[in-house]
Amino acid sequence: MITRMSELFLRTLRDDPADAEVASHKLLIRAGYVRPVGPGLYSWLPLGLKVLRKIEAIVREEMNAIGGQEILFPALLPRAPYEETNRWTEYGDALFRLKDRRGNDYLLGPTHEEFFALTVKGEYSSYKDFPVILYQIQNKYRDEARPRAGILRGREFLMKDSYSFDIDDDGLKTAYHAHREAYQRIFGRLHVRYVIVSAVSGAMGGSASEEFLAESEVGEDTYVRCLQSGYAANVEAVVTAIPDPIPAERIAALPEPVVHDTGDTPTIATLVDWANGASLPQFAGRDVTAADTLKNVLMKVRQPGGDWELLAIGVPGDREVDDKRLGAALEPAEYAMLDDADFDRHPFLVKGYIGPKGLLANGVRYLVDPRIVDGTTWITGADEKGKHVVGLAAGRDFTPDGTIEAAEVREGDPSPDGAGPLVAARGIEIGHVFQLGRKYTDAFTADVLGENGKPVRPTMGSYGIGVSRLVAVIAEQQHDELGLRWPSTVSPFDVHVVIANKDSDARTGATELVSELDRLGADVVLDDRQASPGVKFKDAELLGVPWIVVVGRGWADGVVELRNRFSGEKRELAVESAAADILAALG
Amino acid sequence: MITRMSELFLRTLRDDPADAEVASHKLLIRAGYVRPVGPGLYSWLPLGLKVLRKIEAIVREEMNAIGGQEILFPALLPRAPYEETNRWTEYGDALFRLKDRRGNDYLLGPTHEEFFALTVKGEYSSYKDFPVILYQIQNKYRDEARPRAGILRGREFLMKDSYSFDIDDDGLKTAYHAHREAYQRIFGRLHVRYVIVSAVSGAMGGSASEEFLAESEVGEDTYVRCLQSGYAANVEAVVTAIPDPIPAERIAALPEPVVHDTGDTPTIATLVDWANGASLPQFAGRDVTAADTLKNVLMKVRQPGGDWELLAIGVPGDREVDDKRLGAALEPAEYAMLDDADFDRHPFLVKGYIGPKGLLANGVRYLVDPRIVDGTTWITGADEKGKHVVGLAAGRDFTPDGTIEAAEVREGDPSPDGAGPLVAARGIEIGHVFQLGRKYTDAFTADVLGENGKPVRPTMGSYGIGVSRLVAVIAEQQHDELGLRWPSTVSPFDVHVVIANKDSDARTGATELVSELDRLGADVVLDDRQASPGVKFKDAELLGVPWIVVVGRGWADGVVELRNRFSGEKRELAVESAAADILAALG
Repeated sequence: MITRMSELFLRTLRDDPADAEVASHKLLIRAGYVRPVGPGLYSWLPLGLKVLRKIEAIVREEMNAIGGQEILFPALLPRAPYEETNRWTEYGDALFRLKDRRGNDYLLGPTHEEFFALTVKGEYSSYKDFPVILYQIQNKYRDEARPRAGILRGREFLMKDSYSFDIDDDGLKTAYHAHREAYQRIFGRLHVRYVIVSAVSGAMGGSASEEFLAESEVGEDTYVRCLQSGYAANVEAVVTAIPDPIPAERIAALPEPVVHDTGDTPTIATLVDWANGASLPQFAGRDVTAADTLKNVLMKVRQPGGDWELLAIGVPGDREVDDKRLGAALEPAEYAMLDDADFDRHPFLVKGYIGPKGLLANGVRYLVDPRIVDGTTWITGADEKGKHVVGLAAGRDFTPDGTIEAAEVREGDPSPDGAGPLVAARGIEIGHVFQLGRKYTDAFTADVLGENGKPVRPTMGSYGIGVSRLVAVIAEQQHDELGLRWPSTVSPFDVHVVIANKDSDARTGATELVSELDRLGADVVLDDRQASPGVKFKDAELLGVPWIVVVGRGWADGVVELRNRFSGEKRELAVESAAADILAALG
Repeated sequence: MITRMSELFLRTLRDDPADAEVASHKLLIRAGYVRPVGPGLYSWLPLGLKVLRKIEAIVREEMNAIGGQEILFPALLPRAPYEETNRWTEYGDALFRLKDRRGNDYLLGPTHEEFFALTVKGEYSSYKDFPVILYQIQNKYRDEARPRAGILRGREFLMKDSYSFDIDDDGLKTAYHAHREAYQRIFGRLHVRYVIVSAVSGAMGGSASEEFLAESEVGEDTYVRCLQSGYAANVEAVVTAIPDPIPAERIAALPEPVVHDTGDTPTIATLVDWANGASLPQFAGRDVTAADTLKNVLMKVRQPGGDWELLAIGVPGDREVDDKRLGAALEPAEYAMLDDADFDRHPFLVKGYIGPKGLLANGVRYLVDPRIVDGTTWITGADEKGKHVVGLAAGRDFTPDGTIEAAEVREGDPSPDGAGPLVAARGIEIGHVFQLGRKYTDAFTADVLGENGKPVRPTMGSYGIGVSRLVAVIAEQQHDELGLRWPSTVSPFDVHVVIANKDSDARTGATELVSELDRLGADVVLDDRQASPGVKFKDAELLGVPWIVVVGRGWADGVVELRNRFSGEKRELAVESAAADILAALG
């Protein structure tokens, strides 16, 4: 195919758009790949659409290769099934809701678990029908609070969502791993640099779950990894490295806890100051730090459909409770901090002096950070104003109701596999694989006949790829200071031929070269515009086709120039064999 | 490609769905191509999606062949541009409207004239940039009052909409004809039987406009055509054949009109009865019929932004005013019948006895059917209760303000080209080509620099094809009593191979044959299910792949059977050369 820039619906921009913050957003607009039409809404101009379709085709190929069957649901969906699973409400403001002319409720689909489950229920009736993997590549809608970074986080975006249905957990695992490998092939073909991180389930409930994060400074997701072992996890999913157990004889030898008058010490900082002035025998020879204190954070928690109940979380005093980790750990329950009325209702809660003994004596559910193992001793509240206890031993003096992964994760924390410290980085979620389980087949009682003649309920996996987001991710990872750079697998063209010579012979020669490239099967864009060579070179660099051919001054000497947009390497090719040489370079 | 029915996500249904009325709807559901998910909302299962994508690919190829450049807008669009063109209001209940979390108004795009015009305005600035044809293939949304007939009229549907932009009318004509010819190629490749009819502009305003209607008894559009000349038009667009002018000397010889007491004759029927009993000299020797009377229909009309004004329409008494034709003729004005208060306000309007003289004397705008040429004489109201006038001559006794195409069209009416009578038929709109003009470039002041240095305003054409509707149209036109029948250009598979023999040799043989067909490039579905030959044959007929290969009893004798789903023809093929022979049959 030959595309002439003199006819192409494309106008590049010299300046960055005013509201663009990240490089991919700036460049995709400047290079005329996309245009904004509203907050989080973009139109795809010819070049952008070509890249999008190429990514879509690669995703489709790899989904078909693992036996995925493509189907397509409407984006406009009736409310009832989402009501059944409570997602109509749970999605909150992120769901686009609307009414039809009869006043019935509809939504624009954010994901389609409900309809896939209902469809399989509708078509299949026996265990013999399974396994099956179904997918669609379709526009999704989410009313983001702050749509940002161009197509990295839009409100209408193209997504591949697939769903596996299996009779048993082994089947689900097989489908999960098939997807995981397909995703690795897809992102490999797209030349995306990514990590696979453990993830918690988020709003969807379920068990095994991993995210594919494209490495990027502009990513919204923070993850940590251990460079020694390769362990990687979303912040929400990080498992705390548990200290070695303390031998029983050492616990037996611990001094009894002592309650002290600590004065006005309602904060960790004031408590540490007091402790360092108190010449406590346990700390002879070293300073007391916040890590020696046990901070008890009070909140109330409500399970879906249940009542508010008190919950206390104990963490070492040098760590905050991380909202994201707390939310994920409590999922699907919601939580809220206590207000004054709550404190008034529970006079045993002495603000600033709350301790494990008072909590447990009053029946408050008490969960602690996994670092608080049996035999660790703490400076903590003594449940009376101005009093703290020193040397309170977990497991001996108090026994929590369990542990919770809610304390903040820090760079330098040990990896849970013991291999070394964790380092933090940012990424952009490009894929998610998820052993969803029976949440949706339960909701719709999607039973089929089992091998033994009794009903059996299929288990689901749910797998997503952000197809339109990948256009921005590739732009973000591959661009340089001159413009975009596309891997050949997704580039809008194979070769960009620039006529940089006003000589009519050169023009004719370029046209012939392009015809020959087309004949050999290359997809070529020809810059045949009446513009200066400088303008044309700048545009070629901005557009980012991986190979640039310049028909310029060398023409008179029988040579054209081939440039590699990634390496910057240039070499001269003899005109006679130029087309064949270029094809060979494309690989 | 090989698809095994044992693994295919497909369950055919024995019975017609309860709510399906038309054959295509019944069959597409029974054959597992689509499934309903809500009123006017359908999911595409694997086979349906394959057909849809093949149609889409043909449309794309032909659009690219006329130089169309594909782009893609969001379906979710901000209100402002549609407010600018008044379509936010004009679309009425048919527009899906919604609000985002900030309370801003959005719509689901019904067509995208506004955004195409704005985009060209944004990118192009000079006459040198033109012409350009842009298109998209995208989901459209219309909240139909009665979504019906399955995917023939859905509320979310796939459409190709393209728009041409030209500096002058000659350019627009060229783009219009390029589209018209591309559409003929597209519908030809899809084997759709269709007619091209003149159409009025409908809600969009503009000039030349034609519709492509697929011939179908279940179509919602009525059109007429002249079998002698090939003239064809939408009912709204039919031009009345005007009678020959009456010579001046004959007009001069007409008797003077006479006012009669006609008693209680407020309807055409009672007036005709009176006339036949009155021995009127003009009608000596023949009966008076309703066609001899002139009926004056009163209404009020309001131009956009204007006030209500009276309008009277005079039609021969044997014809009704046709709502669709009236609406199209008055476009963009709206109209309403008069209520009692209106009659009270205008006492000269004597219900049942309204005549041209009273109307014209009181300044009421008066338009007549084109058959009411100068010199025709009429029995009509005399503007007094119980009185009519006989022999009132148009052009002599009254002069209307003009003519209007609002009277009903009937089979047998003469074709406007004089070639013969009109016959009526029904069709399904599958395409529309439309010289839109400057409505949208005016709305957005989308001027560019002209050749003479002054601003020039581009003119637009708008062209649509109902891509998803075509799946149903082809099913509707091609099916027979056994099931669907797909032309090879859109069939989900090239060949349907049925294993109709439990013998394991036959099974192995069929598998080898299918591998060979695949190797030769055919897309094959293999019915390898454990089911009776009868069930498999029925399904093969229902699914509608054009070529069916049966590996059955003949296997032992070294033959397989090739069936043509359209002609029903069967022939035996020697196993050794079967694959090659089948490929040859596919053509």
